[in-house]
Amino acid sequence: MFKYGEGGVAGWSTLCGAVNGAAAAICLVAGDAWEDLVNELMAWYENNPFPSDTSNQYAREKAFLVKEMKSDKTLPQSVAKSTLCHVSVTEWCKKSGYKSFSKERSERCGRLTGDVAAFTVDMLNRHFDKAFTPVAKISNEVQSCRSCHDKGGTIENTRGKMNCMPCHDDPHKKPKS
Amino acid sequence: MFKYGEGGVAGWSTLCGAVNGAAAAICLVAGDAWEDLVNELMAWYENNPFPSDTSNQYAREKAFLVKEMKSDKTLPQSVAKSTLCHVSVTEWCKKSGYKSFSKERSERCGRLTGDVAAFTVDMLNRHFDKAFTPVAKISNEVQSCRSCHDKGGTIENTRGKMNCMPCHDDPHKKPKS
Repeated sequence: MFKYGEGGVAGWSTLCGAVNGAAAAICLVAGDAWEDLVNELMAWYENNPFPSDTSNQYAREKAFLVKEMKSDKTLPQSVAKSTLCHVSVTEWCKKSGYKSFSKERSERCGRLTGDVAAFTVDMLNRHFDKAFTPVAKISNEVQSCRSCHDKGGTIENTRGKMNCMPCHDDPHKKPKS
Repeated sequence: MFKYGEGGVAGWSTLCGAVNGAAAAICLVAGDAWEDLVNELMAWYENNPFPSDTSNQYAREKAFLVKEMKSDKTLPQSVAKSTLCHVSVTEWCKKSGYKSFSKERSERCGRLTGDVAAFTVDMLNRHFDKAFTPVAKISNEVQSCRSCHDKGGTIENTRGKMNCMPCHDDPHKKPKS
């Protein structure tokens, strides 16, 4: 059912497919706790360096359960800054120097998917062990944008908890004189 | 299972939840045709004015099967330009003058969800009647961006079929002299 998630929905590069599937899995099992757990997943994804050291190590040791690896190299890591495929891939290409349709980028997304699945399973286990405490926090930078543009703000013309900066940079900066 | 889609995934304002659920439904029933159909849905969503005349009419006539309506007014229409909740909502707020957490905006998203479900069912019916022909086309503007930045381009540093302009405007414009 979740084939459509690949490439951020059929190659459109919107929501990362790893997050999409993991969020659905959370909703299937976690009842009313889904919102806190999905929120935590989204915030973690935005700020975690991918692929993790663990998945780089699994790759070097050929410990992944795949028939053929696209690369067994240790891949460079980047922080996605966003749960959008488009931003996540671009940040990694900028950091790593690899092209967006290289086999290394494809392998990077495979390892990232493993990282997201592992984080989600661990978080769900903690939740069911009553040992889960959310740590996700909206950054001061985004909170500052939201104070005018989001719910209750004087402008209130949008919504969202995403990091604003990858698209908007500093929208209120003065033009250079 | 798809509760997490609300507000573009738990209020993060990424992929519109109406599209997310509809794409999953397509994958459940359409076999290998899923990609063409989901692609068509994404392109249609980016370019269709929401809420449709039909759903505005249903609302006026109280024909929606909901216990209580948030508003039965004819709501202003806007083209989302994006399948991202954040952009879709902002474009509508700019066009309509309503705030992003107003009951009218919430009602607009409800009507849009009906529009997306209706389009999807109709498209699936056409598909199973062997009467579906994809009409989605990547715009010349986006094709021009992709010719350098996407697969096979000299830069090849990203991926995606999304409309580039809502975030990037004209990134190559010369600074004003």
